[in-house]
Formats: sequence, C-alpha cells, structure tokens
Amino acid sequence: MTTTTNKQWLLAARPEGEARVSDFRLVETPVPQALADGQVLVRHHYLSLDPYMRMRMNDAKSYAAPQPLDAVMIGGTVGEVVASRHPKFAVGDPVVGMGGWQQVAVVDGNALGLLRKVDTTHVPLPAYLGAVGMPGVTAWYGLVKLCQPKAGETVVVSAASGAVGGAVGQLAKVRGCRVVGVAGGAEKCRYVVDELGFDACIDYKQHKDAAALDAALAAAAPNGIDCNFENVGGEILNAVLRRMNAFGRIALCGMISGYEGQPIPLANPALLLTQRLRVEGFIVSEHMEVWPEALKELGTLVATGKLKYRETIAPRIEDAPEAFLGLLKGKNFGKQLVKLL
Amino acid sequence: MTTTTNKQWLLAARPEGEARVSDFRLVETPVPQALADGQVLVRHHYLSLDPYMRMRMNDAKSYAAPQPLDAVMIGGTVGEVVASRHPKFAVGDPVVGMGGWQQVAVVDGNALGLLRKVDTTHVPLPAYLGAVGMPGVTAWYGLVKLCQPKAGETVVVSAASGAVGGAVGQLAKVRGCRVVGVAGGAEKCRYVVDELGFDACIDYKQHKDAAALDAALAAAAPNGIDCNFENVGGEILNAVLRRMNAFGRIALCGMISGYEGQPIPLANPALLLTQRLRVEGFIVSEHMEVWPEALKELGTLVATGKLKYRETIAPRIEDAPEAFLGLLKGKNFGKQLVKLL
Repeated sequence: MTTTTNKQWLLAARPEGEARVSDFRLVETPVPQALADGQVLVRHHYLSLDPYMRMRMNDAKSYAAPQPLDAVMIGGTVGEVVASRHPKFAVGDPVVGMGGWQQVAVVDGNALGLLRKVDTTHVPLPAYLGAVGMPGVTAWYGLVKLCQPKAGETVVVSAASGAVGGAVGQLAKVRGCRVVGVAGGAEKCRYVVDELGFDACIDYKQHKDAAALDAALAAAAPNGIDCNFENVGGEILNAVLRRMNAFGRIALCGMISGYEGQPIPLANPALLLTQRLRVEGFIVSEHMEVWPEALKELGTLVATGKLKYRETIAPRIEDAPEAFLGLLKGKNFGKQLVKLL
Repeated sequence: MTTTTNKQWLLAARPEGEARVSDFRLVETPVPQALADGQVLVRHHYLSLDPYMRMRMNDAKSYAAPQPLDAVMIGGTVGEVVASRHPKFAVGDPVVGMGGWQQVAVVDGNALGLLRKVDTTHVPLPAYLGAVGMPGVTAWYGLVKLCQPKAGETVVVSAASGAVGGAVGQLAKVRGCRVVGVAGGAEKCRYVVDELGFDACIDYKQHKDAAALDAALAAAAPNGIDCNFENVGGEILNAVLRRMNAFGRIALCGMISGYEGQPIPLANPALLLTQRLRVEGFIVSEHMEVWPEALKELGTLVATGKLKYRETIAPRIEDAPEAFLGLLKGKNFGKQLVKLL
C-alpha cells in the first residue's frame, strides 16, 4: 500500500432536475489495514462513468434500488489486488469489479460476480470497463438478442460514438448490416464513420427539428430502418420510429435525453402497431447468462483490432463529478473513465 | 337466388378527421348469373364491423394497403353457398370469408384463405365472425403468444366488452390470471364482471383524468400489471404503463382512441426501459400459423358455453355505415354485426 487514505465520492443530495457537482461530497477515510478471511483489498486504476448512474441518483421507481445518500457512489472499476485473504486472488492480480467512486475497496472474494480476475495479455485493463465490459455486453445483448439483425438490414444506433453505441455499430457491421449512427457534433460523426466504419452518421446538433431529422434519416437509411438500438430517446427516437420498417425491433437501452427533467413523450405510439414493431427495454446485469458468449466475441474483436473504441480519461478522482455531468451532456468522446491511481 | 341485385357499400371519400356516413356510398349492382370454373357464389348472412377498417380508410402508411376508393368496403362475412363451380363447395354450405360490405360475392374457391367451410353444429354461424373468428384469434394470439401470462399474474385489457377484449379476459381467466377490464360505461362494466367473469372492470368514463385512472387501476390491480392487451391507447395506455410491473408485456392490438385526428403521445416512454417492458404490435392475419390451435381452443370454449360473448346486430345493410361509426365511438356492445340476409 502506498497510501493509507481512501478518497471517496458520496452522494450528498438527490438532484432536483439537472445533477450538479454539489450533489456529491468528497471524503477521505482510512484504508482498512486488516482483512477478514475471504476478503480482498483492491486498488482501483480506473473508474467507469456511465449514464445509468444518473437514474440511480433519483429516489424513483426504476430498475434498481436508488443509490443511498451518504454512501459511496456505485460504479464499475478495474484495478489490482494489493492484499488478499482469498485463495482465488493473489497480490498483483488485475481485476474488474463494482468498486465504486473510490480509490480502494475491500471486497468479499466469495460474493458472486463482485470481483473477477481478467487477462491483460491482449486486452488492456481499462477495456474491461468498456468494449470488453458492461458497455460491450450491453451492446451485444441489445443488438444480438433483441434486435436480431440480419445481413442487409439497416441498424440505427444513437449515442453512436459512446462506449455502447460504438460497439453496437461495429457488431452490426460484422453481421453484414448497413449501420447508421446518430451523434452530437461533426467530430464525433467523423470518428464514427472514418474510424469505426459506420456507413453513415447523423449529427443531431445539425438537425434541430423533426423535418430535418426525418430528411437526414431518409438519406442515411434509404431502405428504412429495421433495428434501432436506442440510447437517447426523445426527438431522435421519434424520428427513428417514423422511419421504421414493418416488423422492426427496438432495443431500449437508455433514454438519456429524459434522465433530467420532464419525460419526453413518444409522439406517435400508433406506429408501433401499424408497423408491428417490437420494443424491449433491458438492463444487461439481468442477463448474466449471455456474458460469457458476449465477452468471448468482444474480447476477440478487441484483441484482433477489429473492435475499436476511444476513451476520455479524467486524470484525478477529484474530477469524477464534473466528468460525470459532462457525460450526461455528451461532452465526453467514447468511454468516460476516471484515473484513480 | 331470391334476388338479382346486390347492395354494396363503396368507400366514397377518405375521411378528414372523423369518418362520416357521407364517406360511404350505397350502390346496387346485378348479381352475376354465370360463374366461371372454380368460382363460388356466396349469399352473406352477416357482415363483421371491426375497428381496423377505419385505418384502411386512410391513405396512410399502415399495416395494409388502403381501402381503394369507389370499391366495395372490405370486411369479414359469413353466409351460405348459393351456387358453386368448385368441387369443395356445395350449395347450402355455411362459409366464412372476406366478402365485404355487400349482400353477395363471387369468390375464387381456390384462393387460399378467402373462403372456408365451417361447422355450425355446435357454434352458431355469426360466432365465426367473433369469438371463433378473427377477433377471437386476435385475442388468443396477443394474449397467448405475446403476453404469455402465467397463473397468478394480472392482465389488463381495454375495450373489455368488445369482441376481442371479452375473449382476452376469458382466455386469461382460463389461465388462472387476475383479469381487469377497462370499458366505457357502467352497463358494459357490469357485463364484463358479472357475465364474462372478469375480476374487476374500470369504467373509464368515470375516471377522466390521470390521477383518477391511476387510483382506479391501483385498486383493481393491487399487485401491479404484468400483461396488457391494448385495444385503445391514449390515456388508458398511459395509466396502465405507470402501473406495469417489471418485465411486463404489452400486446398492442389497437389504438382506437387515436384512429381519428391527431396521434395521442405516450407520456413517459422511459417506463418501458425502467420496467424492462416488451411491447409488440401485431395484426393477426400475419400469424396464420396459430389459427388452427387458436380456433380449436376458442371453438371448444364457445361450444361448451365457457366463452361468452354478446352481439350487437344492425338489422339491414343500409345501417352499416352508421353502425360502423358507432363502433368507433364505443356505442356497440360486444361484437358489432350487420344482418345482410
């Protein structure tokens, strides 16, 4: 151990509308010096910031219990074992877990799924928080299991330059689909097409009303849309819905445009009927049965350079709240991480 | 043949907003006196009026081609064969088909699915337009294949006293579910509970705002809603959505509240995500593979008196447009038919 204190971010207040930095509180606590039997002490290298955290900050009916006030914010982490009283974990092991917004964590090595050793020979450690982690499996589950795209079909994915969206598009390209991304800004769109290999990308910031979005989608998806992987909701979803083909599938992964403030209505739900669409909301942690298959494909694609991704890394734990608020506004580029070491 | 003329209703104009009687035109044409080889002449006893017809009247993107102007309105019919040049159909055979809003029709006996002989020993002929016909199979498909209710789950169905809704609820009761209907008016609600055996019924006319609908649903579905068979859409669907349990299923069969005029938005689509719901729109004619299994259960239940239904019969073909417009406003009670003989 190089330090004896653990910096931690707690949820200080539930946001009213937009979350603010003052909703979080930084504290320092002593690092436990003695482990109980079965426990593992992990030093975190990176924290993952993800949109789902915003919903957890509310005290509302959702897919998970709210984040408790005055407790360490939840979050995925990668790091290394620095002390262990569990036979399966040795000092130096690279691990991925749900360590939260803090520098170190004491983890019960027996708790199923809490801590997992990973192989960093071919896959860099932080990728286990992105393309070969929860965001990657989220992309895989929604695309493969819910959208079930066939070669030649058109797949649209919003937040296309993000950790999930980028993986969705590349997995769809592997399956022979035409892939259209939606992203905020010319730079993100260039990245999505030029680096990730999408067929087209719509910069929603350049298409502010329904007619403009419709025209852009018509140009990018001339044969209509068969699959939609939705991360954003709101007017983008409304426009996509207007262009869905019969028997289209929508995997509802996120509605980030409505996480803060009033819900954004779905303008014309009758299209679900007239086009016989299937819409399904999901959260990947409820589908653990697909993780091995998904991680195998994702890990192979990353190791062979066929699945690309970008990371935005906030350099210090102190930056976590601001980086998180930026993520909610789309200021990040690719996977948003915080360096904790 | 007792007459030589055939009264027919044509679509005269596409409605702007609400459909009107003047959108239809009654004509008389001669009954063909000579059949070609393979043709069958059918005299219709009853015409089925169904909400889907309203969408066909529009020239809009929908699940089927628009009803052509100046052509006989489409519609399901039951009747008897009065002349036949097809070996499978004999004079006197009771048949069900898609004869349209007219008294007689010449049908190609070889066209798959256009004409079907039925057994009227245990099931009355008009039931083949209702509980043992398209509406019954619609109920069966949406409930059994899409909602997939388990015993003990709560099923909500709108337009509960209608041909589809009534069958949905009774099929769900057979499967051990708690069944809540939504219908318009105290008389329909009494019928749904007292005669069809639903556990509860909400008279939406008595619950005009969101808070009142929420309270009524909370009382009728104290354990939340697992399955929703949706025939109406609009505020009822919004209220149901607010009470859906995690992993709920919504079979989207009709959105009759929005068929005329502006689309009614879905107020909070993020609930589809937070509750991980599955919504699927369908039209039963695209799932012909289930018809034999569905008709077997429906026919048995009707023949044994376990599936009840009510019919509203307009007495003359001249009444068809007015009866149809009444159906769109919920003025009918149960299955709406028009007597053509």
